[in-house]
Amino acid sequence: MGGNTFGTSLQITTYGESHGHALGVIIDGLEPGFTIDLDDLSFQMSRRRPGGNRLGTERNEADAVEILSGIFEGKTTGTPLSIIIRNTNQRSHDYTDISRFFRPGHADFTWQKKFGIRDWRGGGRSSGRETAARLAAGAIAMQILRSKGIVITAYTTQIGSVIAKKRDLSAVTENLVSCCDSEAAREMEQLIDSCRESKESVGGIIECLVTGCPVGLGEPVFQKTEALLAHAILSIGATRGIEFGEGFLSAQMTGSQHNDPISPEGFLSNHAGGINGGITNGEDIFFRVPVKPTASIEQPQKTIDLEGQSQTIVVKGRHDPSIVVRIVPVIEAMTALTLLSLYYDQFGRS
Amino acid sequence: MGGNTFGTSLQITTYGESHGHALGVIIDGLEPGFTIDLDDLSFQMSRRRPGGNRLGTERNEADAVEILSGIFEGKTTGTPLSIIIRNTNQRSHDYTDISRFFRPGHADFTWQKKFGIRDWRGGGRSSGRETAARLAAGAIAMQILRSKGIVITAYTTQIGSVIAKKRDLSAVTENLVSCCDSEAAREMEQLIDSCRESKESVGGIIECLVTGCPVGLGEPVFQKTEALLAHAILSIGATRGIEFGEGFLSAQMTGSQHNDPISPEGFLSNHAGGINGGITNGEDIFFRVPVKPTASIEQPQKTIDLEGQSQTIVVKGRHDPSIVVRIVPVIEAMTALTLLSLYYDQFGRS
Amino acid sequence: MGGNTFGTSLQITTYGESHGHALGVIIDGLEPGFTIDLDDLSFQMSRRRPGGNRLGTERNEADAVEILSGIFEGKTTGTPLSIIIRNTNQRSHDYTDISRFFRPGHADFTWQKKFGIRDWRGGGRSSGRETAARLAAGAIAMQILRSKGIVITAYTTQIGSVIAKKRDLSAVTENLVSCCDSEAAREMEQLIDSCRESKESVGGIIECLVTGCPVGLGEPVFQKTEALLAHAILSIGATRGIEFGEGFLSAQMTGSQHNDPISPEGFLSNHAGGINGGITNGEDIFFRVPVKPTASIEQPQKTIDLEGQSQTIVVKGRHDPSIVVRIVPVIEAMTALTLLSLYYDQFGRS
Amino acid sequence: MGGNTFGTSLQITTYGESHGHALGVIIDGLEPGFTIDLDDLSFQMSRRRPGGNRLGTERNEADAVEILSGIFEGKTTGTPLSIIIRNTNQRSHDYTDISRFFRPGHADFTWQKKFGIRDWRGGGRSSGRETAARLAAGAIAMQILRSKGIVITAYTTQIGSVIAKKRDLSAVTENLVSCCDSEAAREMEQLIDSCRESKESVGGIIECLVTGCPVGLGEPVFQKTEALLAHAILSIGATRGIEFGEGFLSAQMTGSQHNDPISPEGFLSNHAGGINGGITNGEDIFFRVPVKPTASIEQPQKTIDLEGQSQTIVVKGRHDPSIVVRIVPVIEAMTALTLLSLYYDQFGRS
Repeated sequence: MGGNTFGTSLQITTYGESHGHALGVIIDGLEPGFTIDLDDLSFQMSRRRPGGNRLGTERNEADAVEILSGIFEGKTTGTPLSIIIRNTNQRSHDYTDISRFFRPGHADFTWQKKFGIRDWRGGGRSSGRETAARLAAGAIAMQILRSKGIVITAYTTQIGSVIAKKRDLSAVTENLVSCCDSEAAREMEQLIDSCRESKESVGGIIECLVTGCPVGLGEPVFQKTEALLAHAILSIGATRGIEFGEGFLSAQMTGSQHNDPISPEGFLSNHAGGINGGITNGEDIFFRVPVKPTASIEQPQKTIDLEGQSQTIVVKGRHDPSIVVRIVPVIEAMTALTLLSLYYDQFGRS
Repeated sequence: MGGNTFGTSLQITTYGESHGHALGVIIDGLEPGFTIDLDDLSFQMSRRRPGGNRLGTERNEADAVEILSGIFEGKTTGTPLSIIIRNTNQRSHDYTDISRFFRPGHADFTWQKKFGIRDWRGGGRSSGRETAARLAAGAIAMQILRSKGIVITAYTTQIGSVIAKKRDLSAVTENLVSCCDSEAAREMEQLIDSCRESKESVGGIIECLVTGCPVGLGEPVFQKTEALLAHAILSIGATRGIEFGEGFLSAQMTGSQHNDPISPEGFLSNHAGGINGGITNGEDIFFRVPVKPTASIEQPQKTIDLEGQSQTIVVKGRHDPSIVVRIVPVIEAMTALTLLSLYYDQFGRS
Repeated sequence: MGGNTFGTSLQITTYGESHGHALGVIIDGLEPGFTIDLDDLSFQMSRRRPGGNRLGTERNEADAVEILSGIFEGKTTGTPLSIIIRNTNQRSHDYTDISRFFRPGHADFTWQKKFGIRDWRGGGRSSGRETAARLAAGAIAMQILRSKGIVITAYTTQIGSVIAKKRDLSAVTENLVSCCDSEAAREMEQLIDSCRESKESVGGIIECLVTGCPVGLGEPVFQKTEALLAHAILSIGATRGIEFGEGFLSAQMTGSQHNDPISPEGFLSNHAGGINGGITNGEDIFFRVPVKPTASIEQPQKTIDLEGQSQTIVVKGRHDPSIVVRIVPVIEAMTALTLLSLYYDQFGRS
Repeated sequence: MGGNTFGTSLQITTYGESHGHALGVIIDGLEPGFTIDLDDLSFQMSRRRPGGNRLGTERNEADAVEILSGIFEGKTTGTPLSIIIRNTNQRSHDYTDISRFFRPGHADFTWQKKFGIRDWRGGGRSSGRETAARLAAGAIAMQILRSKGIVITAYTTQIGSVIAKKRDLSAVTENLVSCCDSEAAREMEQLIDSCRESKESVGGIIECLVTGCPVGLGEPVFQKTEALLAHAILSIGATRGIEFGEGFLSAQMTGSQHNDPISPEGFLSNHAGGINGGITNGEDIFFRVPVKPTASIEQPQKTIDLEGQSQTIVVKGRHDPSIVVRIVPVIEAMTALTLLSLYYDQFGRS
């Protein structure tokens, strides 16, 4: 009930603070006998790591992963796989101003009220850095899913008011904002640069596409695929919602527009986003996720201190003007962990 | 793992098919000594019951609840409270056409593929009727929350392209569409009537507002308040997403626009929707939920049969042109169950 | 966390008080397509039902089961199966003396202190009658296990100081005490009769044997087969322990005596009781369970009342001088539910 | 469902193989603001560590613990506390003979059949070394319980046929076998020494006493205190059973002998072992646990190899003639984790 474990057949448990000794994750329930691709694991970690992108934070972390257990001669054994990621580039002195003031848009206030104590260095466990552990676990889940033909791709479709006009997945790895439209990507990059200069931040929208998912994942009623994915995605800090298939647009559609007709060759449209009654139907799954603007901005903001007195805070440090790009792989990771757990629920572990 | 249990400190387990003997719910973990208001319980059931609203289905169910356990001399005892709702007005012969054809937009196809067998009468357990059990449990959770000063109100803000222009909560119980804008409500009612005539259906958007929630509910990382509410809400059939606070709009906002400044008297705005870092901050919680158009429409649609052959289906029966109105109390119910469980997690049961 | 749900892949949730309207159970996670034998279900219920045995209580309950959901045309559908058992023969006036006095050996005192309220009629939910719901669920689990070749048999090996001298399973259904030794059974019956006359009660020991269990059930570390069975069995009121294989005797054995050598044809002995490292090894599983003497005795006993004042209580009512016999099928039931859940964990649901 | 997580309000998740890089545990759900005594933690680890006792294995491990997260300025923060214990003295070459032969009495056979792969070095995750992680978590739980007045003490009462004649808790730390009777301890030590010489091993019995536990821990029905303790204790390798209070002896007792009368000052006897109806009653809790003889013996034993062929194995290595002594602190640890979780369930975290 501490809330640091996620999943059913496949479970992850994470730990670690932004400026503590290390972050880590235990993955429990993996199928035995799977050969883990360590190069791919490192590559996935590099996608989110601080300092890995000129648009992001200047904090530079190697985010090297060490696997402590659960592998024998390169293969999973079915026992818990423990991964540790050491913190090496924390600079706590940057944050000493914030030990007593609550940063607006952050969890400082609620955390202090709930626990009566908090590791305020870099936000402690409420820092986005916590997601590095999820990413490591998700990278392994993605490898296993890929071996079953299931491929997950997330990408940016909007930063501020710049909106992608097309869905060109080949473009996603070709720009600094993981956008599916090269032209829009350039504008997005400029927007982020200008935000950095004006000490502002900006939000965005991420879309996630899953191909190759078999029919039958998800359990009726409370463990519907959408419910579990929504749980997974909304557990990522800074996400503000989720919509599947036509999502909010479906409010304006009629039944004959929204229903997907069925033919012997499969569904003739995919307004549902690949899920009916909570169970995957074999079509592509897709959903969209709004991400709020980075809460840390180097501008004066009204707040209070530990004693409840009015204060003005300017949040210094090494912040991303937009965290959208770094959340893209985290959304893939949480999607992978959710779907692999559902896969094991339905088809077992071998 | 059958997926019919929801919650942590407070758990509900539901059962029942649309045309089976009964639906029901076991509520486990309720605080002892609470006096249940049976009249209020009946009233809440009437808000969703079939036949309770001239705009809805013509199926007429009393939806009388019988409490089998967990109460002694009118008070909860801390033991599981079991509620049963008998089905009385099922007319299975209306559905015999659909025993072999998969209805587009329904769970027929996925259910058949996943389980290899299904109770096709009225959609079996995938029917919206399943939510009657949640509603009974939620009505009790709402009573307990109200005794702690926490009030949950959901209402329609959009049906098709008709959008509420104001948030007048006093209007919600005064119209047939649970809308927060009396004027818009009239247009919505007309739209639904015209859909019925044209054998069409239409979607909508529901908003939910929670007032009086204390600081400190929700656990960091995987049990964030938004994550649990999203799980709860997306487990309701026909919902297609959820957004908290500014939601999808936050993508276009800057940090200085979106951050809520803090004063000694509280937050100076509420873009976050009452939650920071997954933990409630004492402000109002609010979120919006898109609902798709009813899948059952009395129009010819392309589909396949059990043998995979092309077929045309016209879904007859007693259907709601819009299920939005009947989902409104279900959203309140799932919100109440989620928040009461989090309340017990944080503050205990007494 | 209310504690009324048990299992992982297969879960049961029970409810009901001794003198309330009904008892019941929801079984969630059953494989779809299994034809339930309703006659066998009734027969199993009759084994535990009050009034079913001249040695037991005089309370006479039909214990008729009604299945409310989860079955279609005689087969399980994979949805939750809800079973209700109405109470019909409760006589609360027998118990009015005990509404204010705590009965020694019962849960009256602890329940009052924990919850501050209790349904004192017949012990409420702490009554052994609660196990009727488990029995119904277990009977179905036993049918499914039997179809997979797994057979569970529990039997009495000791009542008071009368000890069975042989393990003749064909004798178990031939006597009133479910004993595996016809001769000892006669002595046990006499002992129970004499206890009834002297207003005393007596304990006993039950052994449980599982044949046909495949290799591989149970998960290492915290979900070992013994750990889950111990949890299941010790959750039955009046049980005071459990031992597997050689159990307490193993303390006096040497490694060369206790280790089971392995041959190409299988294990050459079975001191371990069919489990190694928490995982079933294909041999027979067996364990023994001590059951305490019935706490309700019609003799004066020292106790206190609700105000903490000294009192003397004589517990009247219709009590079993020994509850061992009625616990025998409950042990089979809980064993079946535990093993079927582990079976689904390992081999899936189909 | 991988089975490596234990607990409800307080959860531990463990990982690690005997000869892998490290063992570890994540403790989730600890109350915030508790000052951990690191010296006591190291002392507790030393009680179980290999090489810490001349009677035990010659493997010498420092078992130094490193806390990676969850602590700030010496205090718990309410976030997951991660502890890592590096393996330093593994000598895998001692075990190369066992990579292909299944050791009798070990989990080699079942593990191979279940997973199809296993880290055979030192038994991998099925090694008793796995309990080092539980011990670290339990040591912290014991500190917190002690601050609430709850004290847990386990001790040896039997090794082979040598049985303790008295319960002198002050003796427990004064001898090498953690026995509550100094005289018996000397005989036990001699018995273990002679076992080492004769290449044999021997079992024993451990008793555990809990004082200071308040009324009200444990939930009725499936989460009874005995059920959870039995689950916890039987999840420790080599344990073969458990009995509470009078345990197996209760089979021979009458109701008037076994019932504990109640007076205004408390219970007048304690045959129940401090628990009624699954809920603690304020008296001392006590239970006994049989431990089988060490499976590893340096004698020829019949077995089979990976291909199922007959083989003879002599298990070499550095083994304890009796593992009873090293299991004593593990029983304390698992008892502490179980009771602290139940304490939080009942009284919350602060």
